[in-house]
Amino acid sequence: MGLRFLTSGESHGQTLISILEGLPANLDIDIDFINNELRRRQGGYGRGGRMKIEQDTANILSGVRFGKTIGSPIAIEIKNKDWENWQNKMAPFGEKPEDFKDFTKPRPGHADLVGGIKYNQKDLRNILERSSARETASRVAVGAFCKLLLKALNIHIYSYVVSVGEISTSIIHEDPILNAEQAEKSVIRFVDPSKDNELMEYIDKAKESGESLGGIFEVVAINVPPGIGSYIQWDKRIDGDIAKAIMSIQAIKGVEIGLGFESAKRIGSKVMDEIGYDNGYFRYSNNLGGTEGGMTNGMPIVVRAAMKPIPTLMNPLRSVDIISKDPLKAGKERSDVTAIAAASIVGEAMLAFVIAYHILEKFSADNMEELIIRYNEYINYVRSF
Amino acid sequence: MGLRFLTSGESHGQTLISILEGLPANLDIDIDFINNELRRRQGGYGRGGRMKIEQDTANILSGVRFGKTIGSPIAIEIKNKDWENWQNKMAPFGEKPEDFKDFTKPRPGHADLVGGIKYNQKDLRNILERSSARETASRVAVGAFCKLLLKALNIHIYSYVVSVGEISTSIIHEDPILNAEQAEKSVIRFVDPSKDNELMEYIDKAKESGESLGGIFEVVAINVPPGIGSYIQWDKRIDGDIAKAIMSIQAIKGVEIGLGFESAKRIGSKVMDEIGYDNGYFRYSNNLGGTEGGMTNGMPIVVRAAMKPIPTLMNPLRSVDIISKDPLKAGKERSDVTAIAAASIVGEAMLAFVIAYHILEKFSADNMEELIIRYNEYINYVRSF
Amino acid sequence: MGLRFLTSGESHGQTLISILEGLPANLDIDIDFINNELRRRQGGYGRGGRMKIEQDTANILSGVRFGKTIGSPIAIEIKNKDWENWQNKMAPFGEKPEDFKDFTKPRPGHADLVGGIKYNQKDLRNILERSSARETASRVAVGAFCKLLLKALNIHIYSYVVSVGEISTSIIHEDPILNAEQAEKSVIRFVDPSKDNELMEYIDKAKESGESLGGIFEVVAINVPPGIGSYIQWDKRIDGDIAKAIMSIQAIKGVEIGLGFESAKRIGSKVMDEIGYDNGYFRYSNNLGGTEGGMTNGMPIVVRAAMKPIPTLMNPLRSVDIISKDPLKAGKERSDVTAIAAASIVGEAMLAFVIAYHILEKFSADNMEELIIRYNEYINYVRSF
Amino acid sequence: MGLRFLTSGESHGQTLISILEGLPANLDIDIDFINNELRRRQGGYGRGGRMKIEQDTANILSGVRFGKTIGSPIAIEIKNKDWENWQNKMAPFGEKPEDFKDFTKPRPGHADLVGGIKYNQKDLRNILERSSARETASRVAVGAFCKLLLKALNIHIYSYVVSVGEISTSIIHEDPILNAEQAEKSVIRFVDPSKDNELMEYIDKAKESGESLGGIFEVVAINVPPGIGSYIQWDKRIDGDIAKAIMSIQAIKGVEIGLGFESAKRIGSKVMDEIGYDNGYFRYSNNLGGTEGGMTNGMPIVVRAAMKPIPTLMNPLRSVDIISKDPLKAGKERSDVTAIAAASIVGEAMLAFVIAYHILEKFSADNMEELIIRYNEYINYVRSF
Repeated sequence: MGLRFLTSGESHGQTLISILEGLPANLDIDIDFINNELRRRQGGYGRGGRMKIEQDTANILSGVRFGKTIGSPIAIEIKNKDWENWQNKMAPFGEKPEDFKDFTKPRPGHADLVGGIKYNQKDLRNILERSSARETASRVAVGAFCKLLLKALNIHIYSYVVSVGEISTSIIHEDPILNAEQAEKSVIRFVDPSKDNELMEYIDKAKESGESLGGIFEVVAINVPPGIGSYIQWDKRIDGDIAKAIMSIQAIKGVEIGLGFESAKRIGSKVMDEIGYDNGYFRYSNNLGGTEGGMTNGMPIVVRAAMKPIPTLMNPLRSVDIISKDPLKAGKERSDVTAIAAASIVGEAMLAFVIAYHILEKFSADNMEELIIRYNEYINYVRSF
Repeated sequence: MGLRFLTSGESHGQTLISILEGLPANLDIDIDFINNELRRRQGGYGRGGRMKIEQDTANILSGVRFGKTIGSPIAIEIKNKDWENWQNKMAPFGEKPEDFKDFTKPRPGHADLVGGIKYNQKDLRNILERSSARETASRVAVGAFCKLLLKALNIHIYSYVVSVGEISTSIIHEDPILNAEQAEKSVIRFVDPSKDNELMEYIDKAKESGESLGGIFEVVAINVPPGIGSYIQWDKRIDGDIAKAIMSIQAIKGVEIGLGFESAKRIGSKVMDEIGYDNGYFRYSNNLGGTEGGMTNGMPIVVRAAMKPIPTLMNPLRSVDIISKDPLKAGKERSDVTAIAAASIVGEAMLAFVIAYHILEKFSADNMEELIIRYNEYINYVRSF
Repeated sequence: MGLRFLTSGESHGQTLISILEGLPANLDIDIDFINNELRRRQGGYGRGGRMKIEQDTANILSGVRFGKTIGSPIAIEIKNKDWENWQNKMAPFGEKPEDFKDFTKPRPGHADLVGGIKYNQKDLRNILERSSARETASRVAVGAFCKLLLKALNIHIYSYVVSVGEISTSIIHEDPILNAEQAEKSVIRFVDPSKDNELMEYIDKAKESGESLGGIFEVVAINVPPGIGSYIQWDKRIDGDIAKAIMSIQAIKGVEIGLGFESAKRIGSKVMDEIGYDNGYFRYSNNLGGTEGGMTNGMPIVVRAAMKPIPTLMNPLRSVDIISKDPLKAGKERSDVTAIAAASIVGEAMLAFVIAYHILEKFSADNMEELIIRYNEYINYVRSF
Repeated sequence: MGLRFLTSGESHGQTLISILEGLPANLDIDIDFINNELRRRQGGYGRGGRMKIEQDTANILSGVRFGKTIGSPIAIEIKNKDWENWQNKMAPFGEKPEDFKDFTKPRPGHADLVGGIKYNQKDLRNILERSSARETASRVAVGAFCKLLLKALNIHIYSYVVSVGEISTSIIHEDPILNAEQAEKSVIRFVDPSKDNELMEYIDKAKESGESLGGIFEVVAINVPPGIGSYIQWDKRIDGDIAKAIMSIQAIKGVEIGLGFESAKRIGSKVMDEIGYDNGYFRYSNNLGGTEGGMTNGMPIVVRAAMKPIPTLMNPLRSVDIISKDPLKAGKERSDVTAIAAASIVGEAMLAFVIAYHILEKFSADNMEELIIRYNEYINYVRSF
């Protein structure tokens, strides 16, 4: 019953609304920071036309007064600028415009067909509007609040793209901050911006052939104290919560922590992070990516996620009309060639949420003063253990 | 508030107790099936001495009468046979035996050090006893009940090991049942039993050098109907729940669904599973591993998990005594060289739980007769959609 | 993980926002019904000036298209008309107006003092804005959606006030519908409108002396099928959920089901509802108010709630300035003399939510067609048991 | 995801098993205290034969080592001594004894009929075994652990019966401790033991006429700090949680906090607890029973609960045979005339759980040292606010 959030809103609906509840009072809220996070999500080479229409900004409708949280639930609105073109087609009440056709050609890889079955909808627009990754704008706004909380505790979150389709790089630094700095220079948040030209050509080519691309990103949290999460029950492990949060991002098909699948290949002594002591415990490596026994261990939390290509293809795949049952090509919606840059920002948001949740479980969720006192006491305690 | 379970018990405590709640009444319970599942978990080349001591069997203490569930919570006991040797050392009350030493040398990769900090324990035995993978016996028992539920709906779950350390195979069949059959013939549940000799040598060699090994397993569920899980909120997606459940297994560091990380490399048309229709919708492939938009899509659910090597090494790693702070070698506990075979069975159990949970959310959890009627109605509805 | 909602918003903030998630798709949404529910909450003799300013209407921002739910979360906005007078004083960002004084005199009986401590706020406005019963407008909107769901299953919810302060009546009918009809004729939703003049005088007198009043209301649900809720675990009982939901309404201090406290005085045979059979089971009485063993039993669910007087008094009580610690009179906010009429409507909303939650747990939350088929099958099954 | 528990077990099953999870490590566990709590639940004039058979004691199967919690889940076993007479009739596996008849005559007021419908059971024993108040032994054991936690923070819980059927008393002291001391002297935990003879005669008479009795008890928690619970969302209020926990006790039909229903009759100034200051805030009264705005306010938490008479009557009521549909008298099970004394102890347990839950939410659940430091800091902070 700690930190929680719900998002709502359709891709071409009037607005996206989220409620985030459980942040301590007296947290400073920097609205520019939040809007900048939204901006970061909108970038990346290979995005479609929608991103030119929308310039997402957050309206804080409750829970913040004179720049500080007051303990109350925070309602966040992100208006859909495209709404003016859609208000008749997506109206909550009234009749469907006669000239507006149902979406009946489900796109493989998208929620269209299964969602239509589940919710008994023959106009698959009623599915695709909510299952669209437009929803991730809400997550980024929620995550921005979580990041502000974490920043107050000197916990920071970074991300960078490590592969786009078949293109990867050998230049990944040990220091996640350096990687993230490099990514911010790249047109697609790639960890090695020297590959930008190659990547742009690659993406352009995919676009020309009506194809789409996925990729892999890493998201890293630093300065997370040890002892967050627990091994005592399967559903209290922070690695489980991280996996759920990351896998819940649209189009993610794989999650690793630390070495991940690579760790399965190595012998034990090449995986475990040996323990040293020098005015406090330290590790000689971070192969486990910051979690041991379902708890954080004080090392950077390193998560890697695989995103499948965007399922909307301009050279569409085989599908079936759900009314006539005729075989045909899947429908199209305006879409991106690749959204891997955006996904990395959403990954930051979800990791920020999970860590904030567990931090507040362990320390306090009532007010920042209490949180910071307890947090510092704990940091000292850990050092003296 | 649907299907849920809690496990309890220490590795060398008196007993493991679990409570599983929310199964429908009138489900036939085959105790031999459950005990066989427990036996399957205990197998696998490379296991340590503990597995020779324990021959796990489940005592059903409540919730089952004359071989059927009655709706009440099910309490499951798995006694620790080793308890007779440990009753003084692990006694709930009384004094610690004078000659029994505290465990003060945390093993890298295990919960020891961080758990000690979190729970303020200087005898790390108080951590390692619960964080031990002995707890997975409980999960397998719980999962066995879930499998019985799923079997009644003709849903089946299979697993097989696809790599052990550096050894993998090119012989993986498309048919998960065939793979699982092969695995049952292997000494380590390897999908290609022709490699058994090679694997045994490899494991023996690791053991000789005081090393440990991890591996990768796949777990597959077939006949899961489409439309379980949902895209409407981040925490209702079944792919997220699967990722959490699998990552929550001790030593798992990576989870993939379908092509997983491979999907990030391919172009869109080589990933999406095209849709056809022939008296019902079908797919031309199953690259997405049975989930689209956070829902099942009717195809087999294919999950792959990476297990790191066992953290207890007979040739121990660098660590620190938590009392003296002296650098030294980590402590040892009786342990396996590799437990990848066991992990695959635990993977089956956790996937069974997640699917059972979502099935009961959608259909009914009160009694089997109601569940089966609704289930069949839905299967027909899906066919006619 | 079924039906759930979060509300947000401050009493003089920009807007109240709620998200309701988990309603089936294809439920017809009658916006006039929802707005009428909001209007019902605003009525009642003895309300303060605020009710003249606000004429609450709901904007549906998501989850409804062309008059039907689509399965997605429903965002509901109720704008605060008073916001234009408060936008500087309650601004999310910027500086507090210099001439606007902090609220530092906590009102006994309100959240002011304890909330200030908990959230470390010296301007208690940051507490009272959210703890205000203005929040119940959100609950009524959410409850209106739940009522629409229940109406589709022929389940209806009624309420009426049975006492205001010391004034009660001996005229309460057995039929809740008749009681509710009478209440709709009364200026204060009193079950016996012949007492309206007496009540108005009584309330006027309380107002003149700077006092406030509470009262007791009943809320009744009819046609709820038997078997909703469960005895198998303490937290799955529907009577517990009802008690929580009703007690959670601002100012409620007591909850009874059926005879409630009266049942404690009677001998067993004068309490239990005997069972008969005539083409289905029936009861000879409804002393237990529709719940047995934590489950509904098919009889009307009858809940009674005690509301304490409004804590804001125009003739204020002793308090302390939280800055100076000087004893003084508590602060005032514009307020009602009594809000018992409003509370009864909020009671309807909360009972509607609890029943809708449990109905969806047992039947289906995906689409109305599925729900109705299963619901009717169950009704037939119950009849034939 | 904080403190939680599940209970399991049938009334005449082998054993009752509970798992309590989320207590901090290093809490001293006094097994004699726990067993004494179980003994307290078994007492009270008017109990049936079962209480002579059972002498409940708790076996702690996990989570406690050498008298202290270690952070792990705590499994608690309470064996049913009566099991030896029931092992064939309640066997988890095997066949029903031929001479053992199904229970087919549902008792009005019990879960029998509705439970039979819900779980599709024609032998209602499969319902009554779990819905029996025997389950409350588990709750008392769980509550005893919670009380030990609270005692370490100097929070104490008391209860006493204030009416049995029609018999009440005018002698209730202001001091709950004094009331509880009186109750411990009474044969039925009555707050005024001078009425014991009258009560025993009254109960005997009810027994002779085959009747049963209910009653009212109060449960009080003292030294609970202010600020536990919250007004920010309907489901975070501690008054709601208290109402749910108390109403969830078998046979409870009403819950009040503080003046409860009486508060609805009074004018505002006679209800609100005025605020004073003398080296910290204090109140001039405790009419609200320790909660304001869904939070504790530092005053004693005073809860009153109404228990209906036991539904099993030796002079049984009208019912129907669920097989033949013939009208007949309800079945009998060995039962009590009144269990109000036991219910008051269960009330203590449930209130202890709710307060412990909220205390751990606010402070820490990892270890007692951390909890106590933070708790004391908070107490000082409150004093200086």
